[in-house]
Amino acid sequence: MPDLRPVLYILGLFVSGLGVTMAIPALVDVSLSNPDWEVFVAGALICLFVGGTLVLVNHSKSMLLDLKQGFLLTAVSWIALPAFAAVPFTFGELDLRFVDAYFETVSGLTTTGSTILVGLDHMPPGILLWRALLQWVGGLGIIAMAIAMLPFLRVGGMQLFRMESSDRSAKILPRPAQIVGGIGGAYLGLSALCAACYWVAGMDAFEAITHSMATLSTGGFSTSDGSLAHFDSVWVDAVATVFMLAGGIPFVLYVQALRGEPAAIWRDPQVRALVLGLVAVTAVLVLWLWLQQGMNPYSAIRYTALNVVSVVTTTGFASTDYNQWGGFALLIFFFLTFAGGCTGSTAGGIKVFRFLVGGILLSNQIRRLAHPNTVFVRKFGGRPLGEDVIVSVSVFIFLYVAAVALLSAGLSLQGLDFVTAASGAATAVSNVGPGLGPIIGPAGNFQPLPDGAKWLLSLGMLLGRLEFLTILVLLTPTFWRG
Amino acid sequence: MPDLRPVLYILGLFVSGLGVTMAIPALVDVSLSNPDWEVFVAGALICLFVGGTLVLVNHSKSMLLDLKQGFLLTAVSWIALPAFAAVPFTFGELDLRFVDAYFETVSGLTTTGSTILVGLDHMPPGILLWRALLQWVGGLGIIAMAIAMLPFLRVGGMQLFRMESSDRSAKILPRPAQIVGGIGGAYLGLSALCAACYWVAGMDAFEAITHSMATLSTGGFSTSDGSLAHFDSVWVDAVATVFMLAGGIPFVLYVQALRGEPAAIWRDPQVRALVLGLVAVTAVLVLWLWLQQGMNPYSAIRYTALNVVSVVTTTGFASTDYNQWGGFALLIFFFLTFAGGCTGSTAGGIKVFRFLVGGILLSNQIRRLAHPNTVFVRKFGGRPLGEDVIVSVSVFIFLYVAAVALLSAGLSLQGLDFVTAASGAATAVSNVGPGLGPIIGPAGNFQPLPDGAKWLLSLGMLLGRLEFLTILVLLTPTFWRG
Repeated sequence: MPDLRPVLYILGLFVSGLGVTMAIPALVDVSLSNPDWEVFVAGALICLFVGGTLVLVNHSKSMLLDLKQGFLLTAVSWIALPAFAAVPFTFGELDLRFVDAYFETVSGLTTTGSTILVGLDHMPPGILLWRALLQWVGGLGIIAMAIAMLPFLRVGGMQLFRMESSDRSAKILPRPAQIVGGIGGAYLGLSALCAACYWVAGMDAFEAITHSMATLSTGGFSTSDGSLAHFDSVWVDAVATVFMLAGGIPFVLYVQALRGEPAAIWRDPQVRALVLGLVAVTAVLVLWLWLQQGMNPYSAIRYTALNVVSVVTTTGFASTDYNQWGGFALLIFFFLTFAGGCTGSTAGGIKVFRFLVGGILLSNQIRRLAHPNTVFVRKFGGRPLGEDVIVSVSVFIFLYVAAVALLSAGLSLQGLDFVTAASGAATAVSNVGPGLGPIIGPAGNFQPLPDGAKWLLSLGMLLGRLEFLTILVLLTPTFWRG
Repeated sequence: MPDLRPVLYILGLFVSGLGVTMAIPALVDVSLSNPDWEVFVAGALICLFVGGTLVLVNHSKSMLLDLKQGFLLTAVSWIALPAFAAVPFTFGELDLRFVDAYFETVSGLTTTGSTILVGLDHMPPGILLWRALLQWVGGLGIIAMAIAMLPFLRVGGMQLFRMESSDRSAKILPRPAQIVGGIGGAYLGLSALCAACYWVAGMDAFEAITHSMATLSTGGFSTSDGSLAHFDSVWVDAVATVFMLAGGIPFVLYVQALRGEPAAIWRDPQVRALVLGLVAVTAVLVLWLWLQQGMNPYSAIRYTALNVVSVVTTTGFASTDYNQWGGFALLIFFFLTFAGGCTGSTAGGIKVFRFLVGGILLSNQIRRLAHPNTVFVRKFGGRPLGEDVIVSVSVFIFLYVAAVALLSAGLSLQGLDFVTAASGAATAVSNVGPGLGPIIGPAGNFQPLPDGAKWLLSLGMLLGRLEFLTILVLLTPTFWRG
């Protein structure tokens, strides 16, 4: 049985931090004389009380986490924090039931972007800002987890991304301060730049800031029920496309770029594969919309680029209802739901590096079939691709498909049709946002789903964000032994 | 460049054998005074002429195949033989276009069972018998390929199934005669037993023999447009369920059983997993149909057992239109389409042993996450699970999913809707037979599809049957070098 004190201590810090963050929407509501500020003060008090208690009770000398404590902290934080962050949704003007509030908060913190709220355009600014903040903070948490936690936990092949200095260390040491600071700075800087661009493109300041938070975090919450279609501006679409892509790239590359190595971004095999893949899929869809469906080629490029980048980076903004584009587009968007961005970014999904590992294994395998006695070396980004990475990646992808299958079966038991259940499961596990079909498609909303489906989708979002194994390992008896 | 002569020589023998087989439907049509016998005589003459020429021209002293020749023979046989076997469909009463005839023949030889023929109930007996024979001969070819060829080619993890004696031999030696003889005997014996049971269950002799051929081969061609629903007999359904399952079990186990080791069948990990999986899925669907949909529990058991076993063993007989069972059943049948039977049987699909390997890797991985310094031994059926098998199995499953995705995108480009395209791709690659939805579902037919879709589906059936890599390896330049 691992010592829970350091885990609960850090969890307490996170919960307290959440409480402090609630001051921001409270201040905004106060400054605009909106009475809804009370819900944030109430939420902040609850968070500070619980978080503060956890910190005080669990303080101990050694705060370094071992492996098992790392697993526990990761899982417990992502499951418990949404319950605290959901408090402002359950009071005040919205007065949501807990299932709806928890769904919305999980969707926010995991940067999924599926929403059960209808009538966003007329909601108090505090609530809209809180949704944006959830995604922005969640995005930072995702990057931190991908850099500092998952490589040590060896989840899903992430050991490939261990930093050299920390290889072979049994304890999870704090990351070098300059990397953490650099990544935080890049995240903040890109968010500010994105907000400025949105503002230049025609949004007001509030819209620009909230959408920028939802863009860099590849979250996808909007301040309008119509998502980006509400603005109907080619400039807004262009800004969104560029910065969603920026959010889907490993943030450590920005630190390298700022240190004078801008070429590092394009040298990264994940970035190249992501950009080339996006261009290829966009080109195919544009040709199809233009030549087969008779859409104006400029409109085809604008809508396809934004929606393809939005789904692949798992953002989930929509600028048009691609449900209306016919069977081919529907299937392509369904498959894109699984893709995901780069590891070390805010994106979800299977992620580019795992497809690259699969591709390396495939080409290797084909050559070995014809030449069984030749030894081929497998490498990824200069590092040898050992058996442990191969097994981890394979197991991850099996789990991914199995999770989507089980989840969609569970959703169909709640009465959802084939397309809604399958695309809902995929969009949740991949943390994308919209599904397909008239209910949860890009022009739809998750509100009409039964409660059971909302719980299942919340579970799917968490499982996908935690890359499955972080949860599964806690369910085994061996974890709790010795 | 490998020496093609032994490959073409053996292909010539296969084509000639096909010609000889055409004598059987010819004799049946003659004996029933049906003028359609002429198409089989014409087909036989073409086969004997081409086959005989290949044999005579390519005779050489050494007829032992090396690895590359093994790949070539496997791929060329499965692609070319359907073109010859399609001849009887293109003349005479049916007068099919080549695309339809090739689709029907590929579907027959790969024991898929998708059909483009409408009005089976009124067709000449020779044609109906020829379709059954295609599946029966194809089934034998599939077992032979799985035992004698794929383990040497190391395709998809099949090296696990090499027989001890032949490990490490560079040449593909003929299998010990008694195993081949024993398997052929078991196949013939079970087919005869199945035909007798069908006859006792109420079919006439011709129906019993043709359905028995389509059952043991897990093919699924029927002599009626209504498939097994035409007979509407609980006894026919029971016989079909039992013998489809028999066709999905490794045939080498029957040889062991006949040699006095009947327990070998149940000791096999694939058989256990297959039977337990079938019982579990059937139970879930029965409960759902009974408690949620209000179906009589006895009917639920009868229909569920037959249709689940039919899809999982990749037979494709249908005794009812499970499209009408609602979203949950639809999703379950979609996922079951991927499952498949045991390796070394006539079934297609991903196959049980690959799921077992995936399960072993998963449990291993989860234990290793919590205890990274402990070494766990991976074994399958007593044999160690080495890195080459793991990579082969992983690559196979990636290719499987990628093939279904690409094929369904191609099908949707031909104008097929989401469910038809996705389920059509899955049913072709898995060699199951029916898809889902109103067009190609269990109550539908592949005739209305556009020609492009029929070609794509034919390709899908062949790729799935050849386990992808057998084809892909031929497309690499390295194969043809050195």
